[in-house]
Amino acid sequence: METLNINSSKRTQFIDITDAVRKVVDRSGVENGMVFLYVPHTTAGLTINENADPAVVSDMAGKLSQLVPEGDGYAHLEGNSDSHIKSSLFGNESFVFIENGSMKLGTWQGIYLTEFDGPRKRQVFIKITI
Amino acid sequence: METLNINSSKRTQFIDITDAVRKVVDRSGVENGMVFLYVPHTTAGLTINENADPAVVSDMAGKLSQLVPEGDGYAHLEGNSDSHIKSSLFGNESFVFIENGSMKLGTWQGIYLTEFDGPRKRQVFIKITI
Amino acid sequence: METLNINSSKRTQFIDITDAVRKVVDRSGVENGMVFLYVPHTTAGLTINENADPAVVSDMAGKLSQLVPEGDGYAHLEGNSDSHIKSSLFGNESFVFIENGSMKLGTWQGIYLTEFDGPRKRQVFIKITI
Repeated sequence: METLNINSSKRTQFIDITDAVRKVVDRSGVENGMVFLYVPHTTAGLTINENADPAVVSDMAGKLSQLVPEGDGYAHLEGNSDSHIKSSLFGNESFVFIENGSMKLGTWQGIYLTEFDGPRKRQVFIKITI
Repeated sequence: METLNINSSKRTQFIDITDAVRKVVDRSGVENGMVFLYVPHTTAGLTINENADPAVVSDMAGKLSQLVPEGDGYAHLEGNSDSHIKSSLFGNESFVFIENGSMKLGTWQGIYLTEFDGPRKRQVFIKITI
Repeated sequence: METLNINSSKRTQFIDITDAVRKVVDRSGVENGMVFLYVPHTTAGLTINENADPAVVSDMAGKLSQLVPEGDGYAHLEGNSDSHIKSSLFGNESFVFIENGSMKLGTWQGIYLTEFDGPRKRQVFIKITI
């Protein structure tokens, strides 16, 4: 298992980790298999979506915050229940296939750590199987 | 890795791919393992839900479009940010266990490719592990 | 494959299954691998989120029911389309890494079966790979 260490800089932030994951896949030397990603946090998640136009992820973050607003009368005293909910809606794990030594992402796909309660130090666990 | 090729015919459409996946599992001859599914698109996803009453998926599609409407003041110029958001809410990957040569789906479960920006040509990548 | 049998007691309920999954992992004797979880139902799901303050999951359940209300003019005659939608939003499968014989959950993470149409008898399928 490998670990990516990431520092987020805003409360809500979609951080493109595609290149960092690609390096781990390259280093593994695995030709055909899978790369599994896991975020060990409860107010951050993972999603795979477009990384060409940055407006896509800002629209995604905006709509999520509209659906699940900060400070919306939550019982949790820490006040960040919206962050927990957004994290569960996106999920905290994902995977990508590896074929011929490369991740089989779609043309427009990038892998994002989705920060919903930053800025914080975050980790992404990575495991590659054959 | 195998690939399903699917043509969607509407902007929003839940396409039941259970039988197509089952054929790939059958052909593999794997008795006990897992089948992993991956959609390499950013405006389509995957979900496993009821395939008995078609009203279930039409209710699901309707509620999603109510929560995340088309053309809701998005910054992304292509105008389909709702499709990207719906795709991330449902996710683009899934898996099912294989036991005694068959997928261990629940009684009411079917596997759906969820089209959120059709009509388009779509792919589903499939990998079976033991 | 192993199966957890769980009885939910409310319509909406987040049931912490972390200890039950941990027992299966312990019994397997696997030192380094993955544990995959699968819910074979269409009105229940799985999520990994905070299990320290119970207000977090009650806030999560409350917000979900606000976004996707029961009896919101659905076509599905059984009347529980909200349960199906919530289940697809959270997803019905998940995984956790195993390192040195233990699940690599984050400090605050617990594994929840999310009941959205209880009370019912529910199952969680578990498969451990190396």
